[in-house]
Amino acid sequence: MLGSTYGGQDCSVARSLEIFGERWTLLVLRDALYGVRRFSDFADHLDIPRAVLSDRLRKLVANGVLTRSTHGGTGGSAVVYELTDAGRDLWPVVHALAHWGQRHASDVATPRIFTHATCGSRLNAHAHCPACDVTPAVADVVTSRPGKPRRSDRVSAELAKPHRMLEPV
Amino acid sequence: MLGSTYGGQDCSVARSLEIFGERWTLLVLRDALYGVRRFSDFADHLDIPRAVLSDRLRKLVANGVLTRSTHGGTGGSAVVYELTDAGRDLWPVVHALAHWGQRHASDVATPRIFTHATCGSRLNAHAHCPACDVTPAVADVVTSRPGKPRRSDRVSAELAKPHRMLEPV
Repeated sequence: MLGSTYGGQDCSVARSLEIFGERWTLLVLRDALYGVRRFSDFADHLDIPRAVLSDRLRKLVANGVLTRSTHGGTGGSAVVYELTDAGRDLWPVVHALAHWGQRHASDVATPRIFTHATCGSRLNAHAHCPACDVTPAVADVVTSRPGKPRRSDRVSAELAKPHRMLEPV
Repeated sequence: MLGSTYGGQDCSVARSLEIFGERWTLLVLRDALYGVRRFSDFADHLDIPRAVLSDRLRKLVANGVLTRSTHGGTGGSAVVYELTDAGRDLWPVVHALAHWGQRHASDVATPRIFTHATCGSRLNAHAHCPACDVTPAVADVVTSRPGKPRRSDRVSAELAKPHRMLEPV
């Protein structure tokens, strides 16, 4: 087995990958940026063993990327995971991965769209709005997924609708 | 063992991670963007088993991210790996990882610097040059690493000097 650290690499890329380079972790963070907050929603959307999901969430909390808290509600209390400021700063990473995949790797029929909430323009490769010449904060980005989702879970249906990033689904 | 694909995820982030989400792969690509081209230079700088490096390079060639070719030289011929257009388009991914690590994860004493070749300004979180208000192509980015490298290999010393990205070391 290869480990999960890069002790010999004196480099901030390696430090980042020590925190979220593990399998599934960047997809958990992708979902968190799209507005997923509950364990069961992550589990339904990602289709991974609950033990793997627990492990990834626990490490992201330990590394200051997510917070874990209990919210009261009419249907009882629920544990929710929310991005910290450091977690929200992962938007350029996730956007760059999405953009590269759409351009070079994708067999995704109807790729997800990212637009600037203010003007509705599509963001470019660097998550920049060319119309307004600004790089919107992640909360000012609207995302949607046109067409019929291939996945039939509730979270996929919710995330397909146009909504602001970070807005709870 | 978890596999290396994300078959259930109809998503371009997942497609990207199927190509370069494996351990070490993004550090190989980082080095390629910094100008590393030879197997022995990757091996010296990354300190990984040669079998792992071979596997990662082979997959990146198979996925159209690197090309492998034999260059003749005065000291005999050498195999070199070079980024394709798709590979060069990974610059926003690697820059975003470097920037996040410097901001949130780093115990790196003297982080690597990325500047716009034309004006010398530091790039921002989105690899944008605020002075010129352009996002330079990767070949128009100069990188350097001030201070004494912690690693003593030749490649680390070369990559510490100011040089254009992609320029062979």
